[in-house]
Amino acid sequence: MADNNVTISKGLEGIYIANTTLCQIDGAHGKLWYRGYPIETLADKSNYEEVAYLLLYGNLPKKKDLETFRKKLISEREVPESIADIIRTFTGRMHPNDVLRTCVSALPAFDVDMNDKSVEANLERAIKLTAKLPTIVAMIGRYKRGKPFLAPSSTLSHAANFLYMLNGVEPDSESAKLMDLMFMLHAEHGSNASTFSTLVTGSTLADVYASVVAGISTLRGPLHGGADEAALNMMRAIGNPENTETYIEDALAGKQRIMGFGHRVYKAYDPRAKIVYNYLKTFMTKTTDPTIERLLEIALRSEKLMEEKLSKTKGIWPNIDFFSGPLYTAVNIPSDLFTPVFAAARVVGWTAHLFEYWQNNRLFRPLDNYTGKLDIEYVPIDKR
Amino acid sequence: MADNNVTISKGLEGIYIANTTLCQIDGAHGKLWYRGYPIETLADKSNYEEVAYLLLYGNLPKKKDLETFRKKLISEREVPESIADIIRTFTGRMHPNDVLRTCVSALPAFDVDMNDKSVEANLERAIKLTAKLPTIVAMIGRYKRGKPFLAPSSTLSHAANFLYMLNGVEPDSESAKLMDLMFMLHAEHGSNASTFSTLVTGSTLADVYASVVAGISTLRGPLHGGADEAALNMMRAIGNPENTETYIEDALAGKQRIMGFGHRVYKAYDPRAKIVYNYLKTFMTKTTDPTIERLLEIALRSEKLMEEKLSKTKGIWPNIDFFSGPLYTAVNIPSDLFTPVFAAARVVGWTAHLFEYWQNNRLFRPLDNYTGKLDIEYVPIDKR
Repeated sequence: MADNNVTISKGLEGIYIANTTLCQIDGAHGKLWYRGYPIETLADKSNYEEVAYLLLYGNLPKKKDLETFRKKLISEREVPESIADIIRTFTGRMHPNDVLRTCVSALPAFDVDMNDKSVEANLERAIKLTAKLPTIVAMIGRYKRGKPFLAPSSTLSHAANFLYMLNGVEPDSESAKLMDLMFMLHAEHGSNASTFSTLVTGSTLADVYASVVAGISTLRGPLHGGADEAALNMMRAIGNPENTETYIEDALAGKQRIMGFGHRVYKAYDPRAKIVYNYLKTFMTKTTDPTIERLLEIALRSEKLMEEKLSKTKGIWPNIDFFSGPLYTAVNIPSDLFTPVFAAARVVGWTAHLFEYWQNNRLFRPLDNYTGKLDIEYVPIDKR
Repeated sequence: MADNNVTISKGLEGIYIANTTLCQIDGAHGKLWYRGYPIETLADKSNYEEVAYLLLYGNLPKKKDLETFRKKLISEREVPESIADIIRTFTGRMHPNDVLRTCVSALPAFDVDMNDKSVEANLERAIKLTAKLPTIVAMIGRYKRGKPFLAPSSTLSHAANFLYMLNGVEPDSESAKLMDLMFMLHAEHGSNASTFSTLVTGSTLADVYASVVAGISTLRGPLHGGADEAALNMMRAIGNPENTETYIEDALAGKQRIMGFGHRVYKAYDPRAKIVYNYLKTFMTKTTDPTIERLLEIALRSEKLMEEKLSKTKGIWPNIDFFSGPLYTAVNIPSDLFTPVFAAARVVGWTAHLFEYWQNNRLFRPLDNYTGKLDIEYVPIDKR
């Protein structure tokens, strides 16, 4: 019964789903722009709050607008007590990303008017989510370490406050800058699986929370949100910088996949990876923790060797996930929080894409190609 | 910067994403098959448990297999106390579908081994979800009515147990049959938005729970899960059967959209709607409740008039959502439970599609077409 004239668009590769002014990725040349600004410029000159504003509103804020935006974010950092209860009940019993998803799924209970679907109300929701996600992630991390929850700071930046709430001390400026950078670099990346998932859910005119819950769910998969953790695990398994080359040679000889290398879109050095790579080198000269120092060295040595082995010979380049793990470790983020941290950063990209898609909404309803039999005779259960 | 050679596949209409042996829809002729069996045959001769088995395992069960499957479903009906807590905390404060989603999101906490991704373990999860979703929905309904939770029956059928847990009395055989029919007719329907959403999430190799959470989120949208409620609201607004024709004529003259008419795939009478329509006529002769009688009469009179006005002249036919509302009302299901009931039935279709897709998995990663500027100059904040 298969219709042989049907073309299956596997993974929707090469299929365009919408126009966008949010993000351009030039995979062949390893270039990335948010709203037309090169990612390198933003990483160098901007900060997460400004980038979030840029993505949500379409332009860089004037001083006054940024101030208002920052204040809104700060005022929305706290979460209701029943969300804290979910964290207490489920942390340690399921993956932190599942706890985060459950918390976000419960947030409609605190929405003043779910029937208000105006652009303003939805932007308000996006800001709330952007503010609260890092809080929830930090609380999960605190609870798992057996430490009491901390009230959010009302002065620290978005990134610094996250590290403060997680680690209980105000981060030094290097760590705060690193976290800010990681939030910026993870804020947006076109119609990847989690963003696309947010759009599929939103295309039914489901609300912002439902759509973001779908995004968080999609990030859970190891093919999407788990590569940084997997790359870090490899570096940890290497253990000593001296073992790096032997380990990698062995892994490649055994045709093992090296996580954090290769990308569906980038056929060149992921520009975000390059930014992080440079940052890692600077960061390394400053750290005094020997464990971190070793880990960063393993990352650098692995990258060097794999670039020779994979990038130059096979065109498989490192992506941002390769460097995230050691850097997150350097600012004391446990590896099972990497995916929820990704979600906390990307929520801005998800909602910005959602709002753009809604301006010209069309329900996603693809087709599948039936290859089975038809009109099979129903045999009564006694005669089967 | 727009690439004018790009074709946008809006809503992915006409795009095939996978081969399937689960379901065939012949939209032009209004025909539907589950695993090759005409839906009319299943509605007439089968039951939800058997259909669930058919969808999950690919063939109709032998007597012994069905017995084992039934027992498994029955043994999985209960939910843990912390799930009951979520229901108590959030029911009445957000939409029942949001409460259901939050509960399902927390279920990984009770999975014996989330790392076990074998086919068997995943089938086990699908069965658990199929068993527990109706329980959660019934508990939400009970709590909202201020009634205590009921322990599930260990003898009643899937459909009868749901009505028992919701309403506190064992349903008569007519009501149980109706519920069973509705569960069967909602179990599967190709790659519609919620099923597709389940696949998008699952394509990252996210787990069964994460994927189902995405499906539940997607059902939340009025373009997908809310049409039955909207159609019922119209029938309630009509109030008296005598007003039907005037109301509809007025609505159509004002170019109001009549919910429950028209379908992206069916360009003929939705075969499920036809089954339900016939059932509604039989059911009507048996009900003694005058309110229900009036509602069913309004449904029948509306259908008759709209068929003349829309189907015959414009080719817009009734779909199943048109008749669901009055029938659900007849078995005492409140309208805000319609979408979660849909989820409870469809979870079988979602998971069956997911398992089929995983046999030949490919991450969904479509493209969007950038239409903005590039390399915009970054102006420092003081100079904007």
